Amino acid sequence: MGTKYTLGIDFGTLSARALLVDIVSGQEIATTLFEYPHGVMDTFLPDGKTKLMPDFALQHPQDYIDAIKFTINEIIDKTGIRNDDIIGICSDFTECTMLPVDKNGIPLCFQDQYRNNPHSYVKLWKHHAAQDEANKLNQTAAARGEAFLPRYGGKISSEWMVPKIWQILEEDPQLFHAAAKFMELADWITMQFTGEERKNSCTAGYKAIWHKQEGFPSKDFFKALHPALENVIEEKFNSAVYPIGSLAGFVTEEAARLTGLKEGTAVAVGIGDAHAAVPAVGITEPGKMLAIMGTSTCHMMLGEKEVMVPGMCGVVEDGIIPGYYGYEAGQSCVGDHFQWFRENCVPEAYEREAIDKGLGIFDLLNEKAGKLRPGESGLLALDWWNGNRSVLVDVDLTGLIIGMTLATKPEELYRALIEATAFGTKMIVETFHEHGVPVKELYAAGGIAEKNSLMMQIYADITGMEIKIGASPQAPALGAAIFAAVAAGKERGGYNDIYTAAKVMGKVKDFSYTPSVENVPVYDKLYEEYKRLHDYFGRGENTVMKRLKKIKENVYYVNER
Amino acid sequence: MGTKYTLGIDFGTLSARALLVDIVSGQEIATTLFEYPHGVMDTFLPDGKTKLMPDFALQHPQDYIDAIKFTINEIIDKTGIRNDDIIGICSDFTECTMLPVDKNGIPLCFQDQYRNNPHSYVKLWKHHAAQDEANKLNQTAAARGEAFLPRYGGKISSEWMVPKIWQILEEDPQLFHAAAKFMELADWITMQFTGEERKNSCTAGYKAIWHKQEGFPSKDFFKALHPALENVIEEKFNSAVYPIGSLAGFVTEEAARLTGLKEGTAVAVGIGDAHAAVPAVGITEPGKMLAIMGTSTCHMMLGEKEVMVPGMCGVVEDGIIPGYYGYEAGQSCVGDHFQWFRENCVPEAYEREAIDKGLGIFDLLNEKAGKLRPGESGLLALDWWNGNRSVLVDVDLTGLIIGMTLATKPEELYRALIEATAFGTKMIVETFHEHGVPVKELYAAGGIAEKNSLMMQIYADITGMEIKIGASPQAPALGAAIFAAVAAGKERGGYNDIYTAAKVMGKVKDFSYTPSVENVPVYDKLYEEYKRLHDYFGRGENTVMKRLKKIKENVYYVNER
Repeated sequence: MGTKYTLGIDFGTLSARALLVDIVSGQEIATTLFEYPHGVMDTFLPDGKTKLMPDFALQHPQDYIDAIKFTINEIIDKTGIRNDDIIGICSDFTECTMLPVDKNGIPLCFQDQYRNNPHSYVKLWKHHAAQDEANKLNQTAAARGEAFLPRYGGKISSEWMVPKIWQILEEDPQLFHAAAKFMELADWITMQFTGEERKNSCTAGYKAIWHKQEGFPSKDFFKALHPALENVIEEKFNSAVYPIGSLAGFVTEEAARLTGLKEGTAVAVGIGDAHAAVPAVGITEPGKMLAIMGTSTCHMMLGEKEVMVPGMCGVVEDGIIPGYYGYEAGQSCVGDHFQWFRENCVPEAYEREAIDKGLGIFDLLNEKAGKLRPGESGLLALDWWNGNRSVLVDVDLTGLIIGMTLATKPEELYRALIEATAFGTKMIVETFHEHGVPVKELYAAGGIAEKNSLMMQIYADITGMEIKIGASPQAPALGAAIFAAVAAGKERGGYNDIYTAAKVMGKVKDFSYTPSVENVPVYDKLYEEYKRLHDYFGRGENTVMKRLKKIKENVYYVNER
Repeated sequence: MGTKYTLGIDFGTLSARALLVDIVSGQEIATTLFEYPHGVMDTFLPDGKTKLMPDFALQHPQDYIDAIKFTINEIIDKTGIRNDDIIGICSDFTECTMLPVDKNGIPLCFQDQYRNNPHSYVKLWKHHAAQDEANKLNQTAAARGEAFLPRYGGKISSEWMVPKIWQILEEDPQLFHAAAKFMELADWITMQFTGEERKNSCTAGYKAIWHKQEGFPSKDFFKALHPALENVIEEKFNSAVYPIGSLAGFVTEEAARLTGLKEGTAVAVGIGDAHAAVPAVGITEPGKMLAIMGTSTCHMMLGEKEVMVPGMCGVVEDGIIPGYYGYEAGQSCVGDHFQWFRENCVPEAYEREAIDKGLGIFDLLNEKAGKLRPGESGLLALDWWNGNRSVLVDVDLTGLIIGMTLATKPEELYRALIEATAFGTKMIVETFHEHGVPVKELYAAGGIAEKNSLMMQIYADITGMEIKIGASPQAPALGAAIFAAVAAGKERGGYNDIYTAAKVMGKVKDFSYTPSVENVPVYDKLYEEYKRLHDYFGRGENTVMKRLKKIKENVYYVNER
């Protein structure tokens, strides 16, 4: 038997990436990328006419089909590896990213009658327009003393499955009823390979309020939300839930034709993109927090028991690694933060300087920001440009910068934004610590961990912890490939369990970032200030951010009338 | 007797401007501008080697001499008006802008031995490095119950004369003792024309703690500050104080040679630049507030009695118009604010768009910001990039912006900065109102009032008051020319009093800005939020801005060691 490979496909916010891995050496053989032609739709539908309301963030499911067709064919073509030797495949996906489908699993937006209907499209993870529903859901759950609520830090996010389904019901009951099912995209994309739905325990647990022992919330609870939701789980959502790494089925003839994979290839159940990265850095045991840093940051932890951490995004048994409780926290604005700054705040002189020096603009900003010492700018920011996911779980919070003078420079603002995200991470680490889930080691993966050494050093200085870096530049795809090897199982040349697979295939870099003894005390002081502002604006003492948002919404509606 | 003219010379932060006015028609005949070659020195001395400490802002007095030489000669040359017909001259100057001189009135920085000594140069109004001295002065004055303190809103600013003198004593006692006098530049420049010092009641009152009835603070007070200061007033500062519009003397032979003026021309005592604008818009009575909006904004009011308004910058009998109490308030970051934004925050795409459209960058920003409605951005800012002058009188406060999302655009940030300065003005208007100095009408003058209609409309909407605009684009220079006509007096073809002179020579534009009924209620809501943040960060509840500044200073000093 020759070398065997598995394929991990990572569906991100703007593109999908396939990664082919040698499952014995762990070597990453090849990768291909496909950018979604429709990107993120947040102003108009593809018809160019239908305007989207504020906070909408949609995607087009055809982009995902095109992505698997392109990336898998391409990777087979360019490596020349026989599809016989690709023994397993697994997809990871942004989460909760969801879609209404008909009884055959076909997206409603593919039907002419729904083409101009925003609610027929994919609601991307960062679709934030279901906040009203999330608020009402949280009130109802709190009033009823629902046991699930504390597992999600006391708040269900507007980004998750139930608020998104409920928003469709509220805003378009006809479409709600026309939908046979609402699917998580991690499961929908897996179904494109196998022909049948197999719901995964990760996204079901983290995003759809599923619990291994207790199942989904009760019919009574859903009825209390809205009478039409009473049976939503059994009628439009439920199916058996399978642990991560389970076999979802086998590549169908049709999928084989589309992708170039061999019919009958093992397919693992889908997984959330952040969660997939955990085994990719070799973590299969408690005490080690992984931060996956990209557009946003997700923090992953394993624990041996189920405890309640305020503002965690969820704790799910079998949610990350079978046999452990997987804890999740998150920051909803990290890479996006810097991209915003890059697009809106970098003066022309800096663009010119970057060109003169032959640098990318982020390289220049990092070079300039890297010359500053902690505290030197006098600036402090709250990293809430996209709300706060952990520990406050509140998308209506907004950004803040304080400390500007007439001498404040762009690189100081940029560094303050980096520091703000690091303070946010420290806040999460401390909250886990204080609530019985000790964080003994810190790992990072994702594009930022890979590329931005200034930022990683700042994270080490601010958290006061060493940070190990995942060795793969595509940790989620690698994690998916690891789960694919487990789904294939030993008899097909794969592995029987994730612990063995992750030991062989997961990896971190040789070097790590260690805190500077000089910087830590300054950042400790700044962190005290961050915490105070965090609590003042985030915990109800001054809810000005929400009132400003309300005023803004009123202006918007007046304008539209 | 033919047409008579007077000359007002306005010394601003970056340039000086001369204005020749026909005193009967009030027509502005000609103006000339001279940019200071040394500008504002805030990093190095002219030697290019001597580094300045943070918050220093110096100027070179040779620039002022060059300014009068250039502008007056030029204006006479280009108009062809005979210097016989120029019957009076008056200079207004940024304030408190001060200078140590020898016993002949020669600046110490002209002497070789002091050339590399920062303290020998002009300390510009916005030199902020005497904050420690200002703090100690305020503590001492408060502890002693000094009667002058409430006249300055309870706080003497670090920008003013005594803290600046004291800073020199603290940091360079040798130079302090070498100085025969410390002079306000409004008086020093007047002395260049007349050959002798005549201290004016405006800058003496507003910036050097002089009171018409009580004089300067007592020797006991100065001794309590520092033993070496006990006799500072009589030894290094005092001379008789003359009301605004008084005759300071006559142009000397030497000054006539330098400037082209006729020897013996009447010279009025100097005046602060902001105060000079009041008669230029025709205000010579109580109830009318004038905002002079440029780099910073000064607010001027006349009153019939002396009352205490919190955070006012001063109340001075004869300080603005003889016979009334002149009240002053201020905002230390207005035009500077937008300039900062322009230099540090405007992305390249906007620069390109401005070029494509054939617009200046501020025109483009105004065009984009003008399309936004109040509240639409969801942003709110505190306008403290350069500290807060009124009503908090605290230079250690810094800027804040709140409400950013990933959709926030540059024009929204820019508009939020404009609005912040308008909220600051409303705060000042309300504070005067509430303390017995009713503001019945609002006037504006200065570059911003002249040029930026978006901004003026926002000011009208936020204050809820009509705003009349001074008709002269150079109100301080025109005001100086009016005082020059009074100093000349009727017998030389001028006027015997300021009321008559201002009626003829002062003027406002035909149109004014009126509040929009639609915008006022939205801004009222936003103002409530502004007020709450203003008080939270400004009145001691959370002094994070000061702590951040302290951390920054520590970093600075560590770096320098």
